[in-house]
Order: sequence, then structure tokens, then C-alpha cells
Amino acid sequence: MLQPVTIVAFGKIKEKHYVEAIAEYLKRLKIYTKVDVVELKAESFTEDNHAKIKNLEAERLRDFLSNRKSAIIYLLDERGQEYLSTELAEVWRKSDQPLVFVIGGSLGFSPEILSEFKNQLALSRLTMPHELVRVVLVEQLYRAATIVSGKTYHY
Amino acid sequence: MLQPVTIVAFGKIKEKHYVEAIAEYLKRLKIYTKVDVVELKAESFTEDNHAKIKNLEAERLRDFLSNRKSAIIYLLDERGQEYLSTELAEVWRKSDQPLVFVIGGSLGFSPEILSEFKNQLALSRLTMPHELVRVVLVEQLYRAATIVSGKTYHY
Repeated sequence: MLQPVTIVAFGKIKEKHYVEAIAEYLKRLKIYTKVDVVELKAESFTEDNHAKIKNLEAERLRDFLSNRKSAIIYLLDERGQEYLSTELAEVWRKSDQPLVFVIGGSLGFSPEILSEFKNQLALSRLTMPHELVRVVLVEQLYRAATIVSGKTYHY
Repeated sequence: MLQPVTIVAFGKIKEKHYVEAIAEYLKRLKIYTKVDVVELKAESFTEDNHAKIKNLEAERLRDFLSNRKSAIIYLLDERGQEYLSTELAEVWRKSDQPLVFVIGGSLGFSPEILSEFKNQLALSRLTMPHELVRVVLVEQLYRAATIVSGKTYHY
């Protein structure tokens, strides 16, 4: 059995098409394991308060993660480590602890948070909107689950 | 002015959420340059005819590209070269020829096509469904256009 996964993100997604894409993969994942999405409060920001907002969001993230001490925590950042889909599946298959994937807010992570949490995963070297990152992540989790279970997933 | 872009893909996208996500970015791109999507016919396949289908799709792609001799052609493949979003924007900004990005069909490209067209671009090391690749690509083109034009695009 695959370990449960929690996806932590900031704010709700407004675009209906992304909400629906994510819901589709979460639905398909249900037969494999528990995958939750936790949406922490996002802060609105202006041109000149980026550092402050990132620190506020970092504080909220620390609070949340302090209750997940038994999990392995991955921050999603385009400077992080890249995996092939098969490698990501293998990480999940081998884990004996729950996994938490954290998607930064609109401004990304504060430097402090990046130095506190050393497991950093890059879905791509490209900078993507956090809404689209969430779609790519849940699709990869679904793909990983099909790889681990030996199911064919065509496309 | 940014050079026009043609996205070549195989088959129509069935998922309404992906169709809408792509339409949104194509609409936003209109103020920057012409971005076309050309859908070549996709072949249905079975477990044991993958090579044949890939060759058929390769033939169709060669036919199409033979009329685009003046363009720079990039195949999208997860083993290709990776770029940062800013680097991709710079490739587009500097180009004095139209660009063509080709997204493989459900089975990917044939080995022959991969050896004929040497410009290979990886949006990610992860294997993604071709429908989602199309979303990521149009989002990156939109992002690139905003980078080149110095516009703020938050997220």
C-alpha cells in the first residue's frame, strides 16, 4: 500500500479548468491511497511587500508542518532535484512514512523556508503558475500509482 | 515583434478542462504574436503495434514539416534540453525565423524522427500526458511573451 500524501498549497484555485483537472486525478487516486489537499491562507501582495508576504506564508507553513513530524516533507521548487516519473514512483513505493508536498504561494518560498526544508523537488526547470504546478503534481502522483501497481496508463 | 509560433500535436483533446486552459492562454497570446495549433490525425493503437503507429505518425509529421522549411523546429521530448522560463523567452526573442513546437502523440516519437530533428526541448524530465504538455507549453509561451515585453505576470 502506498503511503498517504498531503499536498499543501496556498490559497484556492480560481480557474475552473484547473480545479476540474485536479479533481479528476484526485478521484482516480482514491483507489490507491489517501491524497489530501490542504489549502493554507494566501496573502494578497503588492509590488513592495514580497519579503513580508513570503515570511507570513512561511510562518503559516511552519505551523502546519509542526503537526506532521512523522512525514517526509518536499518543497516544490524549480531549483530542486528533478526526477523521472519512474524515479518519483520509486520514491513513493519505498517510503515507509507519509509524504507531504508543499507548493509555494504566488511568490514562491522565503529563503529561510528553503534552508529549513532540504528536500526540494523540481517538477520542471520552468517557472509555472502554482495552479498549474498542482495539476502537474496530482497527475504525476496518479501516474506513479499506476506505475507502482503495474497498471497501463495510456497517454 | 515575436516570431509566429506553430504548435503541432496529434489528435484533438477530449478533456474539456484542458481545452479551456489552452484556449485561455492562446487568447492572451493574441496581443503578442500569432500562435497556431495544428492537430495532425492521431492513430488509435493496441498493445502490439506501437512501432507501426509511431512510424505512421512520423510520416504525417514529415509531410507537414516539409512545408515549414523556413521555421526552426523543436520536438518536445523529456530527454531533450531543459530551459529556464527566462532562457526560453530569450530563444524566442532572438529568433528571426518562425518557431514550430511538435508534441508527440500518445506513444511519443519514433526513434527515426528523433534522429532527424535534433532540436529537442524538455519541458520536464517527467513523462506527462500530451494534453497536459500542450497546456504547459502554451502557458510558457504566454509567460515568455510577458517576459520579453517586460510585463508583470504574477504567479
